[in-house]
Amino acid sequence: MAVQLHPPKTLHPVKGIKLAAVEAGIRYQGRKDLVLIEMSEGTQCAAVFTRNAFCAAPVHICRKHLAKTTPHYLLINSGNANAGTGDAGMQAAYQCCASVAEQTSCDQSQVLPFSTGVIGEPLAVNQFPTAIATALSNMAEDAWLDAAQAIMTTDTIAKGISTQIEIVGKLITLTGIAKGSGMIKPDMATLLAYVATDAAIEASHLQAMLQTATDQSFNSITVDGDTSTNDSLVLMATGQSGVSIDANNPQQTAQFQAALDNLLQQLAHTIIRDGEGATKFITIHVTQAESIETAREVAYTVAHSPLVKTALFASDPNWGRILAAVGRSKIAQLDVNKVSLYLGDTQLLANGMPAETYSEEKGQIEMNKEDITITIQLGRGDVETKVWTNDLSYEYIKINAEYRS
Amino acid sequence: MAVQLHPPKTLHPVKGIKLAAVEAGIRYQGRKDLVLIEMSEGTQCAAVFTRNAFCAAPVHICRKHLAKTTPHYLLINSGNANAGTGDAGMQAAYQCCASVAEQTSCDQSQVLPFSTGVIGEPLAVNQFPTAIATALSNMAEDAWLDAAQAIMTTDTIAKGISTQIEIVGKLITLTGIAKGSGMIKPDMATLLAYVATDAAIEASHLQAMLQTATDQSFNSITVDGDTSTNDSLVLMATGQSGVSIDANNPQQTAQFQAALDNLLQQLAHTIIRDGEGATKFITIHVTQAESIETAREVAYTVAHSPLVKTALFASDPNWGRILAAVGRSKIAQLDVNKVSLYLGDTQLLANGMPAETYSEEKGQIEMNKEDITITIQLGRGDVETKVWTNDLSYEYIKINAEYRS
Repeated sequence: MAVQLHPPKTLHPVKGIKLAAVEAGIRYQGRKDLVLIEMSEGTQCAAVFTRNAFCAAPVHICRKHLAKTTPHYLLINSGNANAGTGDAGMQAAYQCCASVAEQTSCDQSQVLPFSTGVIGEPLAVNQFPTAIATALSNMAEDAWLDAAQAIMTTDTIAKGISTQIEIVGKLITLTGIAKGSGMIKPDMATLLAYVATDAAIEASHLQAMLQTATDQSFNSITVDGDTSTNDSLVLMATGQSGVSIDANNPQQTAQFQAALDNLLQQLAHTIIRDGEGATKFITIHVTQAESIETAREVAYTVAHSPLVKTALFASDPNWGRILAAVGRSKIAQLDVNKVSLYLGDTQLLANGMPAETYSEEKGQIEMNKEDITITIQLGRGDVETKVWTNDLSYEYIKINAEYRS
Repeated sequence: MAVQLHPPKTLHPVKGIKLAAVEAGIRYQGRKDLVLIEMSEGTQCAAVFTRNAFCAAPVHICRKHLAKTTPHYLLINSGNANAGTGDAGMQAAYQCCASVAEQTSCDQSQVLPFSTGVIGEPLAVNQFPTAIATALSNMAEDAWLDAAQAIMTTDTIAKGISTQIEIVGKLITLTGIAKGSGMIKPDMATLLAYVATDAAIEASHLQAMLQTATDQSFNSITVDGDTSTNDSLVLMATGQSGVSIDANNPQQTAQFQAALDNLLQQLAHTIIRDGEGATKFITIHVTQAESIETAREVAYTVAHSPLVKTALFASDPNWGRILAAVGRSKIAQLDVNKVSLYLGDTQLLANGMPAETYSEEKGQIEMNKEDITITIQLGRGDVETKVWTNDLSYEYIKINAEYRS
């Protein structure tokens, strides 16, 4: 029951990136659950990871390997998060890297491992070497959709966004895939996302642009407030388009940054539209804040309120719940007489008082929509932000009460 | 579907307190929805209120009246919160106070108004004067249960606790009632609670003891993290037992404080056991914290996690979700290698690693219980705290998606 979300139609290949998805029998039967991504020589790589203190074994190893060298392969499994698995989990993840290294003659530290799925269960890797061999003999530039499908867990639809822009008269491509549906409140990135471009971008510049784009995309979405142990987002720049994005060229940087921002935001939105049990796609737009921290605190308090989320599920214009959530936000000295609220274009509250133009009928029209924007004007300054979320439905409970069984 | 909660059997009358519950036709048909409480001359009163910035009209008026004089009457309605109602709401609440004052010849400022129910709808008070007259001719010392029933909204069971203790050889009574089931994360008190004793206690001493007791009871519970606009807790001391609790007598103060702590904690637990859709009563016990703030942050992060709450509903020992919630708590530099987790007496995690003694069967036995304790040892100090919550079920969604319709 994704909200106005369809499988990606076109995912442009990115020169210099090959992928394969295979079956490794990790948890699911009869479906692909292991993805190998190969980057051509000279590809630069940037990445952001979860800030959860209990981060998974593969996240530890990714950080270690990235500090040491430039990666050549990404190995991603679904069905098991390899988190909360202690030393055995670390060993399992190292074995996966070693298996790729052996079969490709690269160094073990040039392999980055990623896992997603259930937490706290041992990851059995005995079938990995054979699966990796199969993957290596099937690497292809056009396997992005295959890969997007193989990394899914409770996702109902494969997620990918692809775009092409012209810079200095030459075409460059950006293609990304992502997975994630529950345990979504990324604090760096969401569960798993892989984005590649054929532009040539030096590593530190790539990392800076990734962080900028992440703030307004994956770090601005929430399904349930639960930051995962495995969140990872990787951005790869192969350089094979022949177009170089130089940190000293503000115009080209801005052009590329805009395209990257847009792609990551669209990709982040696919996560919310396919959020567990989602029937509505909600934009929380906080304006007139004095700081980004205040704006985000208010936006997330509303976005996480179970009462607001169930009212949205019921299409019930019970705006008192939005008001109550704004009122309990942990911000200093909120003057309610300066606060105004809107549902779409319909004003609910004007300077702390019920808006005279409001009627239940108008509220109902807005609430019946599948895409709903809640605007909260704080009257404290000129900073604004957006956070995206969805509603809380029976289906969310069903999915999460039955996930392991 | 309250969790091991039954209607109160005995609610001892408190000398000096009379109550009546009547029908005022506010929202519900054929049930009592208005309560009047009368305090005898000389009764001292303490109170705590919500910290929600959008607090309701009656909360504003309570604060104002309490600053001015000692109250003589409490007037409580259910069915409408009179919150988010602007000036009209303030006028409606003042009219209620004026009506009691007129009919009893007390001052309007000696009446404290309280409301609970739906937010953002006008409170129609035209039937209040007649209802108040009926109440005044029916005031009785033994109407505590009647009152507990009349203040209910989505509560399924009336809530009250009563106790008698001996101090200096004389019996004193403490009796309290409460209501609340959803929008529960009190930041002072819970929705509505009224507690009375016949001990004689000077107002400032009473307020201090109330605040101490509130921290470990109503301020340590959560259903959904949504702090209400109307939370109010009133403690009345009539003095009619002839026993005086003097601030300068540490032993008597400690004895009374212990009885009060216990009563408020039990009353707060009734709210959680009857929390919307609750099928489990959960104690989150955080130990070895370096500060109360850290302990509470961890406890509430776990208590609010929709993924932990749905796993509890499913009786699924999916402890990875607890671990993930601890890991995302906003506390500085959590060393996961010092963290241990228990479900009941069953250890899940020992110093950051899966406990060797753990088995899925043991976890399942704990999870099948209706009362479950999750213990989180942080290894950072010697401060501990408890927070009480419940699970997240289909019924919660049903109640909150259908509340207004």
